[in-house]
Amino acid sequence: MSPEPYEIVELIRLKRDGGTFERDQIDWLIDAYTREVVAEEQMSALAMAVFFRGLTREELSRWTHAMIASGERLNCSHLSRPTVDKHSTGGVGDKITLPLTPLVAACGAAVPQLAGRGLGHTGGTLDKLESIPGWQPFLNQAQMTRQLEDVGAVICAAGLGLAPADRRLYALRDVTGTVESIPLIASSIMSKKIAEGTGALVLDVKVGSGAFMKDPQPAAELAQALVQLGVDAGVHTVALLTDMSTPLGLTVGNALEVRESVEVLAGGGPPDVVELTLALAREMLAAAGVDDHDPADVLASGRAMDVWRDMIRAQGGDPDAPLPSARETEVISAEADGVLTSLDARAVGEAAWRLGAGRAQKHHEVQAGAGVELHAKLGDVVRIGQPIMTLHTDTPERFPRVRDALARGYEIAHQIAERPPLILDRVG
Amino acid sequence: MSPEPYEIVELIRLKRDGGTFERDQIDWLIDAYTREVVAEEQMSALAMAVFFRGLTREELSRWTHAMIASGERLNCSHLSRPTVDKHSTGGVGDKITLPLTPLVAACGAAVPQLAGRGLGHTGGTLDKLESIPGWQPFLNQAQMTRQLEDVGAVICAAGLGLAPADRRLYALRDVTGTVESIPLIASSIMSKKIAEGTGALVLDVKVGSGAFMKDPQPAAELAQALVQLGVDAGVHTVALLTDMSTPLGLTVGNALEVRESVEVLAGGGPPDVVELTLALAREMLAAAGVDDHDPADVLASGRAMDVWRDMIRAQGGDPDAPLPSARETEVISAEADGVLTSLDARAVGEAAWRLGAGRAQKHHEVQAGAGVELHAKLGDVVRIGQPIMTLHTDTPERFPRVRDALARGYEIAHQIAERPPLILDRVG
Repeated sequence: MSPEPYEIVELIRLKRDGGTFERDQIDWLIDAYTREVVAEEQMSALAMAVFFRGLTREELSRWTHAMIASGERLNCSHLSRPTVDKHSTGGVGDKITLPLTPLVAACGAAVPQLAGRGLGHTGGTLDKLESIPGWQPFLNQAQMTRQLEDVGAVICAAGLGLAPADRRLYALRDVTGTVESIPLIASSIMSKKIAEGTGALVLDVKVGSGAFMKDPQPAAELAQALVQLGVDAGVHTVALLTDMSTPLGLTVGNALEVRESVEVLAGGGPPDVVELTLALAREMLAAAGVDDHDPADVLASGRAMDVWRDMIRAQGGDPDAPLPSARETEVISAEADGVLTSLDARAVGEAAWRLGAGRAQKHHEVQAGAGVELHAKLGDVVRIGQPIMTLHTDTPERFPRVRDALARGYEIAHQIAERPPLILDRVG
Repeated sequence: MSPEPYEIVELIRLKRDGGTFERDQIDWLIDAYTREVVAEEQMSALAMAVFFRGLTREELSRWTHAMIASGERLNCSHLSRPTVDKHSTGGVGDKITLPLTPLVAACGAAVPQLAGRGLGHTGGTLDKLESIPGWQPFLNQAQMTRQLEDVGAVICAAGLGLAPADRRLYALRDVTGTVESIPLIASSIMSKKIAEGTGALVLDVKVGSGAFMKDPQPAAELAQALVQLGVDAGVHTVALLTDMSTPLGLTVGNALEVRESVEVLAGGGPPDVVELTLALAREMLAAAGVDDHDPADVLASGRAMDVWRDMIRAQGGDPDAPLPSARETEVISAEADGVLTSLDARAVGEAAWRLGAGRAQKHHEVQAGAGVELHAKLGDVVRIGQPIMTLHTDTPERFPRVRDALARGYEIAHQIAERPPLILDRVG
């Protein structure tokens, strides 16, 4: 056993006192954490020091590189089509991955989407797809590669082998109040996305009450950090900042969101979901260097729906099977005439979560049919007694508490209200 | 099992974002840490947040109170004499506790001194006394009380029952780069001193290269925090800021320092050790409200030596036994004529430590005879070839490395040099 080249307490003090790490120090730090030479309590103190002191662009690139080096790295470069992926920082009703992945594949790129599960009030892509009877998320690399060649689109579970140091660090940050650090968030996202081997990447950084980032300024900083990390790693990367002050689309919940995604693929669906799907598709195709088709035409042609059906079938799912629905529903109606002047993303997301669509802890099960269906959007005129939402759940004892909490989540008033622009900014 | 009233991640985020804890939150925090509901990695993140954000005076008092409440509290109020203790933040050659404790007892106060062992380059009082054949540091409370009544002076090991939460927190801070936080240092010192039940307390806050605090400004802040905590807990508390840029006295090492302490008790010893012993004795007697005697007279009378001998005998030691000496010595001589213009406390302390007088880790043994004996002090005129130090050790293979390191620890030049004043400031 050779002695360690650095002393972790000295590195913690270096960052604590405003210093900058050398590349070798970062490589050692992440490797020593992986080997459990650096203990959890030391890493959490360092994470808090990084919260206060930040990381320079060079430190952050190296940190991310070391996180990637802690595990395996997929290779998509031998595929016959250019690869491009999308990552969203998470929002309420954000089902965009579902229509977007087959749409971009139908336009000629290959989309290797390694997705996660939801925790708290934002849902997870895997949870949504698992509401489709038979669909299963686990593929090995050979299966993933074959599906990318055959279908052009894969949405599957990120294996435990990608950036395992980040997985441990994220779990640690979650229990030590050190999640809200822009460099650590950026590194966590990008280490997994770079390790999955995509050639290009489009990021959807959500801003607003329903997002992790409530304010535009830190969201813009995060977008900048993400794009820089992608560029530094040789991945063509672009970020959009998009509004998450009010839910995306008209459904929040697993099967409910699959249904809405299929509506979009069929040429319908809520205008905001369609708008964001097309905007992200155009960015992805441009980043991948594929410009033969306009995504709007491909969507209208039904070819994206064909890829969706192939993609679901390739992973054991039945695209024609009826989706599960919740055992009980309850309607919330407008208690006055007026305009829906506020419809808070966070409140609706928490309601869906409490109804059973999300989980409070990692090992919890989610209800496939649970969630919130909206019958009015921000700015809509409503009449007294008109249904504005339907709550869905298998556990109706939760209705009273959810109703009470939701009462503070929307407002009906006599004034004009307009939704903020969906796409706030672009970085890259 | 009743549910916890607070969520630790929320408390970490509160402090991280600059908030102030309620008293109940602090009580819960320390209690939950003691019960291991708050994990080490959570406490280390919080300690780092406290490093950056500090604690208000109210928070710090409550934090210290909660640390004391985590364990037992001694009661000295039934003794026939007023009690007073001294605590030093630690320095090189700082053997003052040894002559001071019997001197103050000989003047009429009772001194319950619960001491610790050394770690790193500053020595520990127990390590020093353990070089006296037969002396043993462990007393239970009944034995301690009896000795305080009979002899008036006790120096013994702090039991594990005092402020156990602080003991765990200190060990955690040591490995997580969170030691250097003034409120956490202050709370750690004062929780143990208040728990030992002394009626009055004098603090010797060391400043300079050989001290924990290198600069006067943070040392003054620490002194202020310590005195406020004492006052808030109803303990009459005073602090002196004293110089630790150059070693105290002419010896650094366990038996070497006992020998020098006995010289002081016999009416001799280096002037700086005598000066600081008398200054601290006067502060302690004033704080305890005992003003019948001038400590200088009591020292000259031999009565302090009598108490010393009783105190050593009461704990099994033989005050007349020869002290152990190291197996090998090596002399460092002046390589030029001139004035000793620098003699760095830290360098001398580290030399003594490397020679075997101190320990690098808690479970290490110390050498009773090891250390550094000085033959010249800062500002002394020296001639080429004149011995300026003697190194003592049982492990002479360490001589070359220690010599090399010490070469940067002193300077001989043709200019006048003066030691800074020993007592820099007083708080209280």
